[in-house]
Parts: sequence; structure tokens; C-alpha cells
Amino acid sequence: MKGIFITLEGGEACGKTTQIQMLKEYFKNKKIDALFTKEPGGMPLTDEIRRLILNYEIDPPLEKTELLLYLAARIEDIEKVIKPALEEGKIVIGDRFNDSTIAYQASGRQIMPIDDMINFTENIIDNFTPDLTIYLRLDPQIAFERKKNIDLELDRIEKAGLDFHRRVLEGFDYMAKKEPERFAIIDASKPKDVVFKEILSAIRKKVEI
Amino acid sequence: MKGIFITLEGGEACGKTTQIQMLKEYFKNKKIDALFTKEPGGMPLTDEIRRLILNYEIDPPLEKTELLLYLAARIEDIEKVIKPALEEGKIVIGDRFNDSTIAYQASGRQIMPIDDMINFTENIIDNFTPDLTIYLRLDPQIAFERKKNIDLELDRIEKAGLDFHRRVLEGFDYMAKKEPERFAIIDASKPKDVVFKEILSAIRKKVEI
Repeated sequence: MKGIFITLEGGEACGKTTQIQMLKEYFKNKKIDALFTKEPGGMPLTDEIRRLILNYEIDPPLEKTELLLYLAARIEDIEKVIKPALEEGKIVIGDRFNDSTIAYQASGRQIMPIDDMINFTENIIDNFTPDLTIYLRLDPQIAFERKKNIDLELDRIEKAGLDFHRRVLEGFDYMAKKEPERFAIIDASKPKDVVFKEILSAIRKKVEI
Repeated sequence: MKGIFITLEGGEACGKTTQIQMLKEYFKNKKIDALFTKEPGGMPLTDEIRRLILNYEIDPPLEKTELLLYLAARIEDIEKVIKPALEEGKIVIGDRFNDSTIAYQASGRQIMPIDDMINFTENIIDNFTPDLTIYLRLDPQIAFERKKNIDLELDRIEKAGLDFHRRVLEGFDYMAKKEPERFAIIDASKPKDVVFKEILSAIRKKVEI
């Protein structure tokens, strides 16, 4: 029995965290053995890598360094967590994966052309691709309004501004257009219960839940 | 004024550390403003990366993860240390650089074919190449005898065995043959004072010291 690897992607404040929490509850109630992973982190080594990327005030990584650190954590996650769970037949839900690297590092920060980044990263992770990617699509303007309302503490990535987040959106859109079979695009401006139903519906096209 | 970037390479127990110490003394006595770097490490971020690579007992990195961590540290070293020093006209002496990745990770561990590794790593570091590479060449059998005599505590890399170190040697040899203009090959089985004179002689062909 082979499991299924599903990723959730989207820009800031798209409701990804909320939806993942709802999925956790859903699977728990249904007694479905699903595994949730979040990039980067979750293991001693990747937690340390995460710390180096996100909260390093003394010696912040260069953009390319950051990219390599993300990819290092991703390889650990694929080989030590995701693949073993899939071998056991589990549903694996990934909170961000390679599409985030394309959207944030290539399209958003423009550290290399988007197609070069796709080739570069897919080469490193040996073309390990999700079976389904749920893309919670939200206009950055709406995202910023949401953020203001809930007054979250903004981390380094979130401080980057509206133009940056528009390019991130374009990056996700590019991937969704490139691989329409893999992507389920969901309008994340809708109420969370509506979004959740659409997520379940997208998953049910791939696996019985 | 533009400085010069010189790397020292070689397998275990080739005398690299000793020779670098002698170079430090030499430059100090001559009042030559040289900068010494050692991979990976030297800055807060790269020291942490080094710790993740070398002494991680709880959650050791996979080979490809390790490769990315080395490259992440290398980018930091190039951009934050080496290039600024070269801009100031300094002589920069690197204790290991990209040739070690080719020799250890590709030829030694065989995590990817050697030419693929050369392309992959040079792409990541934007073809930043040393002006001179001093290759302290030593047969692994002699290296092992040396180690036994001085009874050093062996780290993870050194535990890998003789076959591994023969492949490492082949990797360095491959690079030296590929880029003969850049490489000065020095027989590291000779007495340390002889080796040191040959190192000075190789450097003097590139810069007045």
C-alpha cells in the first residue's frame, strides 16, 4: 500500500494554518492515520536549520544560503519523514513544499529566474513531487488587511512588503498553470468553512477520506 | 588593488594544518596582511552549520543534506569574508574549498558523478575559483601510518576507511589534471620544511611574498 503526499501552499495569511488545524481534527475524528509535516523543521536537525533561517539576528543568511538551508531541510524531511510514511500507506500533509521555494525565492526575491529555480530545486530533491497541491490563493491586499486585523507579530518574510507578496502570488500562479493536474486552486478569501469543504473535495478526488 | 585567493587542499594527515600554521608565522614575520579562512566555519552562522555537519550525533545529516550545508557555508564565506578581503588587496588563504567537495562528496562518497558535482557546485558558487590551489598530495596508506603514530581522535570523516581515502585522492588528482594552471601539486610525504619551501615557491609564482 502506497500513501499519498498532499501539500498546502499559499502566501501569507491565506488561512493555511487554520485549515491544517481543521484537517487534523477531521482526520482525528475519522480515525485516519495522517501525518502532518511543516517546512522547515520537525526533527532536531531541521529545527536547527529553521532557527538559522528565520530568527538569525546576529548573522543573517544570504539569500542563496537561505535557499540551500531550505533545501537541506527539505531533503531531510523527504527521506526521513515523508517517504517512510508513504511506504506505510499514510496520508502525508505537507505545510509548504517546493512550490514555496519557487514562489518566495525565485518569483518573490528573484534570486534566480523561475525556470532555473524549478530545474535546480527539482534536481536536488530528485523530482519528488506531491500527488496533490492545494493552493489557497489570496490577493496580498486582502492578506495584509487580515494581518492588520489580527495584529500578528510579523517575521522577517512578512516584513517584505506588498510588491514582494504580489510576486509570490505570481510564482504560485505560474506553478499552478504549469502543473494543472497536480494543483487544486481554492479561493482563500471565502469563509473558512467553505474553504475547508473545497479542500476535502479536492482531496477526495485523490483518496477516500 | 585586487588580492589573491589561494586554497590548500589535500586528504587527511597531509600536513595542511601544520603548513597553514607555518604560513601564518611567515606572513606575520614579513608583516604581510593575509587572511586565513577555514571551511566550514569562522562566523556565527557558519560555525553553527559546521556543528550540524561534523558533530551531530542525534540526527546526522544525509549525504546530500551535508553537501548543501557545506555549500551554504561556502557561499557565506565567499561573500562575507573572501571577496571583501580580496577587494582590500589581501592575500586570502583558504583551508579547503570546492575541490574538497569534489574529492570527498563526489569521488569519495560517490553521491553524484564527479562531473555533475563540478557543474552543480560551480553553478552554486557562481564559478568563484581560487587563483592558486596548493595540493598537498599524500598516499592514504602513509596518512594512516601518520595518524596511528600521533593517535589523534578520529572524527566521522576520518573513520571512513582506506578505500574511501583512495577515492578522495583520485578526486583531487582529477581536479589537478583538469585545471593544471590552477594547481600546484606538492609531495606531502617530504619533510615539513621541504614542503613549506615548495609552498612558498608556488605562491611566489603568483604574488610577491
